[in-house]
Amino acid sequence: MAIVLGPNRYGKAETRLVRVVRDGDTHALADFNVSVALSGDLAATHLTGDNAGVLPTDTMKNTVYAFAKKHGVGEPEEFGLLLARHFVATQPQVKTARVSIESFGWERLGPHSFARKGDYTRVATVLVSDEFEQVVSGVTGLVLLNSTASEFRGFPRDEYTTLPETTDRILATAVDARWRHLSASGDFAKSYPAALEALTSAFVNTYSASLQQTLFSMGSHVLSQRPEIAEVRLALPNKHHYLVDLSPFDLTNDNEVFIAGDRPYGLIEGTVTRDDAPPAAAEWYL
Amino acid sequence: MAIVLGPNRYGKAETRLVRVVRDGDTHALADFNVSVALSGDLAATHLTGDNAGVLPTDTMKNTVYAFAKKHGVGEPEEFGLLLARHFVATQPQVKTARVSIESFGWERLGPHSFARKGDYTRVATVLVSDEFEQVVSGVTGLVLLNSTASEFRGFPRDEYTTLPETTDRILATAVDARWRHLSASGDFAKSYPAALEALTSAFVNTYSASLQQTLFSMGSHVLSQRPEIAEVRLALPNKHHYLVDLSPFDLTNDNEVFIAGDRPYGLIEGTVTRDDAPPAAAEWYL
Amino acid sequence: MAIVLGPNRYGKAETRLVRVVRDGDTHALADFNVSVALSGDLAATHLTGDNAGVLPTDTMKNTVYAFAKKHGVGEPEEFGLLLARHFVATQPQVKTARVSIESFGWERLGPHSFARKGDYTRVATVLVSDEFEQVVSGVTGLVLLNSTASEFRGFPRDEYTTLPETTDRILATAVDARWRHLSASGDFAKSYPAALEALTSAFVNTYSASLQQTLFSMGSHVLSQRPEIAEVRLALPNKHHYLVDLSPFDLTNDNEVFIAGDRPYGLIEGTVTRDDAPPAAAEWYL
Amino acid sequence: MAIVLGPNRYGKAETRLVRVVRDGDTHALADFNVSVALSGDLAATHLTGDNAGVLPTDTMKNTVYAFAKKHGVGEPEEFGLLLARHFVATQPQVKTARVSIESFGWERLGPHSFARKGDYTRVATVLVSDEFEQVVSGVTGLVLLNSTASEFRGFPRDEYTTLPETTDRILATAVDARWRHLSASGDFAKSYPAALEALTSAFVNTYSASLQQTLFSMGSHVLSQRPEIAEVRLALPNKHHYLVDLSPFDLTNDNEVFIAGDRPYGLIEGTVTRDDAPPAAAEWYL
Repeated sequence: MAIVLGPNRYGKAETRLVRVVRDGDTHALADFNVSVALSGDLAATHLTGDNAGVLPTDTMKNTVYAFAKKHGVGEPEEFGLLLARHFVATQPQVKTARVSIESFGWERLGPHSFARKGDYTRVATVLVSDEFEQVVSGVTGLVLLNSTASEFRGFPRDEYTTLPETTDRILATAVDARWRHLSASGDFAKSYPAALEALTSAFVNTYSASLQQTLFSMGSHVLSQRPEIAEVRLALPNKHHYLVDLSPFDLTNDNEVFIAGDRPYGLIEGTVTRDDAPPAAAEWYL
Repeated sequence: MAIVLGPNRYGKAETRLVRVVRDGDTHALADFNVSVALSGDLAATHLTGDNAGVLPTDTMKNTVYAFAKKHGVGEPEEFGLLLARHFVATQPQVKTARVSIESFGWERLGPHSFARKGDYTRVATVLVSDEFEQVVSGVTGLVLLNSTASEFRGFPRDEYTTLPETTDRILATAVDARWRHLSASGDFAKSYPAALEALTSAFVNTYSASLQQTLFSMGSHVLSQRPEIAEVRLALPNKHHYLVDLSPFDLTNDNEVFIAGDRPYGLIEGTVTRDDAPPAAAEWYL
Repeated sequence: MAIVLGPNRYGKAETRLVRVVRDGDTHALADFNVSVALSGDLAATHLTGDNAGVLPTDTMKNTVYAFAKKHGVGEPEEFGLLLARHFVATQPQVKTARVSIESFGWERLGPHSFARKGDYTRVATVLVSDEFEQVVSGVTGLVLLNSTASEFRGFPRDEYTTLPETTDRILATAVDARWRHLSASGDFAKSYPAALEALTSAFVNTYSASLQQTLFSMGSHVLSQRPEIAEVRLALPNKHHYLVDLSPFDLTNDNEVFIAGDRPYGLIEGTVTRDDAPPAAAEWYL
Repeated sequence: MAIVLGPNRYGKAETRLVRVVRDGDTHALADFNVSVALSGDLAATHLTGDNAGVLPTDTMKNTVYAFAKKHGVGEPEEFGLLLARHFVATQPQVKTARVSIESFGWERLGPHSFARKGDYTRVATVLVSDEFEQVVSGVTGLVLLNSTASEFRGFPRDEYTTLPETTDRILATAVDARWRHLSASGDFAKSYPAALEALTSAFVNTYSASLQQTLFSMGSHVLSQRPEIAEVRLALPNKHHYLVDLSPFDLTNDNEVFIAGDRPYGLIEGTVTRDDAPPAAAEWYL
């Protein structure tokens, strides 16, 4: 028996970049949080401390800032590809580069003035090797709520089941979604808002018998609308809203007054995919 | 020498209330986080454990939910006054009731569908006693950024000063503001968005020699626009954006590429007031 | 009517300092988070943008690091006094300097090895002017729990009261406490652990009829043990542990199985003071 | 082409359980955060909203509390296995149950009194199906620091590299580690502290040429000490401590004064495994 090194990677996480583009007096803003992870022939540093193949994570940070100047940032998928290709192309020991970007939205208030939107965070993760390029886009922290048009009934009951069936409840979730593109050369500026709109409108328009049904509806609506997308993964917390029992106070509560619960919460996770989509080139995670 | 009880209060904090109002098929949503604190003749429970004057905090929570049903919630200032008046009126040992409410915004997506906005949180704190009522409104978490029109120069230099002067920098802050109303019977539905707009437009339109100057501009703009407001308090973190030195890479950086810093940060705090405003009935805090 | 500037201050918040002291091969560690706030003749920058009196917050940060080297850091109260006195002494326009320090504890694992303790954060806030010096010490995030020896009964009931009385419950809180010293020249290395021990042992040893009674016991025990302390302020959240109703499963629950609740929570705030203590030189807050 | 459901699971996340065990006047405490996720024949609810196979997540929560009473909780691995086996055994449509538990430590202060330790969180994730049982233990949030005995040099330099080499730096990390057991029937009460001690002592005793070398040392030390463990996965953020340049103040800084940085940070991830260990029965993640 021997103790050996298994899969590994390293990089610089959470490089905070704000890029201002000045078009005369009118400025535009990109606000990114960039994380880089490289893998490849990295055994030496683990086993002997020989760093000959370990490009410093500080260099990755510098590269993010230098590339933002040289190339601009564009869509997060594009900036991620630019960075990932660079590391694979220039560092022979690097076999795969993963770049993950969070992009924070700002609303324009004036030619050089902005207010940060907090409705959701756009995310992109690209994976580049000599053999393949894989692009995943997504959203996190998008909180959606239907105040009706949601049921939960017909479920099995065991000895620990006390939940009553309901034909009218609040359905609320914080959407955490990722979708894998068929190609790394898409029009991400067009694809992203359309995919987000497909997710959101499916949530709005689905009469829900379960959050699972809503999840499948959201994922399949994205795929039916966006041919460039191969699969969608969703993690949907069921943000429970508990109907308050007002009967001790001689009051009715016809789905009007709710406790917004913190913990515990349901967590519904699922993938929706095309049956003819090529498999992912490399494993990826929501 | 004796050891004695000084100022004290108690209550239920962070009761999470979602109130749905159903107008036919069209629903409206209020999403509040309500904190109640009562003070008065509470020595007995501290000194001897006699709880005869200690209305349970659980009852305060129940009251929030029951009142939401009976009276609806309206503006947070109004719902706070309703609750605070109730506790002072019905509990003889209670001399003062403070109710603080956070109100979270939602964007309508359909008749019963909503997406949570995250751009800022509206807050209100009311203080009610037999002798006075005091209403404070505010905002927290409103992140504003000007990508130019901000300088910082002409400051004193001591032996520990290394900061260069600048005539062009990013100015960014997360506005935490509170404003005290002259009266408890205002039109808060009208006052609130107007005050917020005054704060925001002053930030946008001020050519800033210092964040202090911007702070005073924001506060005075609220007061000049809104006669119902007596004073404004602001805490403005200076969210530093550091210009990246790209010279090692033979690149210029004409205020285009910035590091968004986390810590440390500047913190500018100040009050702007009318010189003829009556003093606050009771101390209050940002 | 005119719009005027009211109370104000500014400074650098959350300068993160780690100071290593090397005594041969044995190292010691101080891990501080330092916030500085200065007030005084600062009207010009607010009103006209004239920064002649605005020592840069960047300079405050530099001063923290330079002083850590020159003077070492010692107890947080001492390091705070050193910094605050410096700003008042060297900047004529500064009338008052407040320095707040969080100190994070580390457990020694070896001559130069440490593990961060997370049981609580020690805090100190000093206020220095030409006329006075005021030192406040404290603790935050100290979570204490008694699994019995806690009652809550004998409380008034109104129409919204549903809480049953209890003679046996879990009492848990996250202690947030501050204590004001009579003098700025104390032995803080000795005073701090003794005050903390007094707080903790009072929590442990009080049979509690209410969290208010426990609060008073904690504060008065500190004062009875520590003559150098003038007053103690405590904010004690009542971290509710709800007994689970297991009767649907034909199980008893004799105070064995609890839900640890998040929100809402009770919040008990109070001051315990010596009746002959001189008043605070300046207002301070928990 | 058809749009189809891919891998999916659902459950109740973050059920907060406090279990008191009363042995006469001496109480013991377990403080768990339990998350359950079930997978199996769940297509119907996704595709048609038929919930006949969807045991409510509310039932999972109830089961956690009922089992805590009936069986006690023991080690988190054991309590997780008890729960996971139950769901697989009693719900025919459930093929796999995953139970993840966070366990929070408390220090005893008296027979029924405790203070919460915050030094780290113990975690366990078990996966149970008809065919296999897999147990993973771990730790998160364990912050370790060596104030010397750490170098970083000999690394490649490209056009974006500015980092100087160093032979003496602070090495600090927040250990996030998981280790897979060879069997589900281990003595987890004995294994856990020993594995944790192995991780910690390897960090302390490794003269580090890179955090990767420290990672491998930590993982291999666990495997060499604990024959019951098949593989170890570690994610180690490099919590950078930047040496402050005090030369503008005519001060030296011989590794005494540091800035504790927030973002960005290095992130070193790796697996250490036995070359003869059987592969994991199912994929698992750090």
